[in-house]
Amino acid sequence: MVTYAHIADAYQRLKGIATRTPLLESNSLNQSLEGRVLFKVEALQRTGSFKFRGAYNKLSQLAQQGVTGIVAYSSGNHAQGVALAASMFNMQATIIMPTDSPSIKINNTRALGGEVILYDRYTQSREDIGHALAQERNLALVKPYDDRDIIAGQGTVGLEASQQLQALGLVPDQVITPCGGGGLVSGTAIAIHEHFSAAHLWVAEPEHYDDTIRSLDAGKRLSNLTAQPSLCDAIVTPMPGELTFPIMQEHLQGGLAVSEEHVLAAMATCMQELKVVVEPGGCVGLAALLAGLLPTRDKTTMVVLSGGNADPQVLARALIKV
Amino acid sequence: MVTYAHIADAYQRLKGIATRTPLLESNSLNQSLEGRVLFKVEALQRTGSFKFRGAYNKLSQLAQQGVTGIVAYSSGNHAQGVALAASMFNMQATIIMPTDSPSIKINNTRALGGEVILYDRYTQSREDIGHALAQERNLALVKPYDDRDIIAGQGTVGLEASQQLQALGLVPDQVITPCGGGGLVSGTAIAIHEHFSAAHLWVAEPEHYDDTIRSLDAGKRLSNLTAQPSLCDAIVTPMPGELTFPIMQEHLQGGLAVSEEHVLAAMATCMQELKVVVEPGGCVGLAALLAGLLPTRDKTTMVVLSGGNADPQVLARALIKV
Repeated sequence: MVTYAHIADAYQRLKGIATRTPLLESNSLNQSLEGRVLFKVEALQRTGSFKFRGAYNKLSQLAQQGVTGIVAYSSGNHAQGVALAASMFNMQATIIMPTDSPSIKINNTRALGGEVILYDRYTQSREDIGHALAQERNLALVKPYDDRDIIAGQGTVGLEASQQLQALGLVPDQVITPCGGGGLVSGTAIAIHEHFSAAHLWVAEPEHYDDTIRSLDAGKRLSNLTAQPSLCDAIVTPMPGELTFPIMQEHLQGGLAVSEEHVLAAMATCMQELKVVVEPGGCVGLAALLAGLLPTRDKTTMVVLSGGNADPQVLARALIKV
Repeated sequence: MVTYAHIADAYQRLKGIATRTPLLESNSLNQSLEGRVLFKVEALQRTGSFKFRGAYNKLSQLAQQGVTGIVAYSSGNHAQGVALAASMFNMQATIIMPTDSPSIKINNTRALGGEVILYDRYTQSREDIGHALAQERNLALVKPYDDRDIIAGQGTVGLEASQQLQALGLVPDQVITPCGGGGLVSGTAIAIHEHFSAAHLWVAEPEHYDDTIRSLDAGKRLSNLTAQPSLCDAIVTPMPGELTFPIMQEHLQGGLAVSEEHVLAAMATCMQELKVVVEPGGCVGLAALLAGLLPTRDKTTMVVLSGGNADPQVLARALIKV
């Protein structure tokens, strides 16, 4: 069980260490969406995504237990969050990343002092490599989402956003969060519902990688039907987490699946209207609004923009389509 | 005279209305610059630049005096700030803009309800057009920088940044601010020196548009030697302001002139490291650091990123050079 109290504890640990990311809005987007849309911009978090929150919350507790080395597997954002947190606690970080991660993610993880081990995600299992390394080198395994401390850390996104909405006198009608394994979604859902019990919570996923949407519909955890590369590398995890899925079942209204076309349009909109760089997987929530998948008229909608680690070619591709 | 008390008053007026923009930093930039560099990101301000602060501070007072229509001249960022503030006070806004402003600035000003009048900045005087319109239509003229309320509003950038630095327990050794007419620079200088009296304050300007640097050296206001178009459209004002120049003389250490090459590199760095979109004129401070014009080693440096209204082609150009 993860409770609001765990998230509040994580919030205290992260205070003054994680960036209090802004809640932004754009007059012209509000006009075109005929409602008020606020964006919680975790692309501006340290290491360029919300993942630093969970990683720091987890590692601060491992450090107290005397752990000096950790191993993690990640498509790239968890990797950077863990690498930075590890450096703050003088821990050795070994990170298992797929060979086809964006260069910016691999390079940044190394620059933060992480030892990167690349694997082929079409033929190898990152979980198996992680468990083997943990045993071999006596390292603590820091999972990307199926961990209470990780979920609680990511939940501080929802806690902070709730405070920011309250400061503006706003009550959100609906919240959309990008969904990979569900750590961010489930932590955020608990925090938002603590403050705004009537808010409708949605996840957004890329088309063909809608494992969470199909799992919610089926009432049980289902896998993705494809393992092809996706523009939204950050959130193409194979299936919802064991711990995260029941939380999502309890809190979510449902899910919205978006096309790459709408993802690119959302990236350009973030750069032009909000002045923030959001990676493909980070802006699926806005993509869903641009695609008209969730009515915003006369409503207050909060959208989490979860990360900003996009390679320059991908950003340029989105801009040139404008 | 503009004092810290004026800035504190403006801060109260703007509270909950202007975005409290974040102070961001990047581990890898800190590493490569061998010091701690913090960025006050006004690109994330409403309308995409700090200009909303001064405009709102000014118009809130004009509204109390019963003014219902205003006129302003601007290359584009003041235009948007004034147009949004005017719409909040139900004022008619007439904005005089050069024909070669970036499309994003002209379009946004219109979308915010401003009536845009275009002029040719190589053959016509915006001041003359502005004064004529003010008389003809009985409008209040809202100058872009030579106005105490505007300077006080822009100074809230420095006040907020000082609070944010203090919350982190930091004392800045040096601050770099982009400089056009000097409204942002002078307001920010007063606020920073109130909190950190020993900080060295610098302006950054584009090469060939270094009117402030040459004026500071000469001890009197000098004009730019060229009127050619510049990538840094936001800050190519012809000479320092009458009110702003003495403030800058009192507070500044000097100025740094940067090439377009370094400006494009700084734009790419902002997108890749900080995940923020900064327009050319907005990132001349970082450009100066990348060019090695001011040592950062073992120092705490604060850099103002003043605006983010860049057309997509310009952003793509910066990204493709990476």
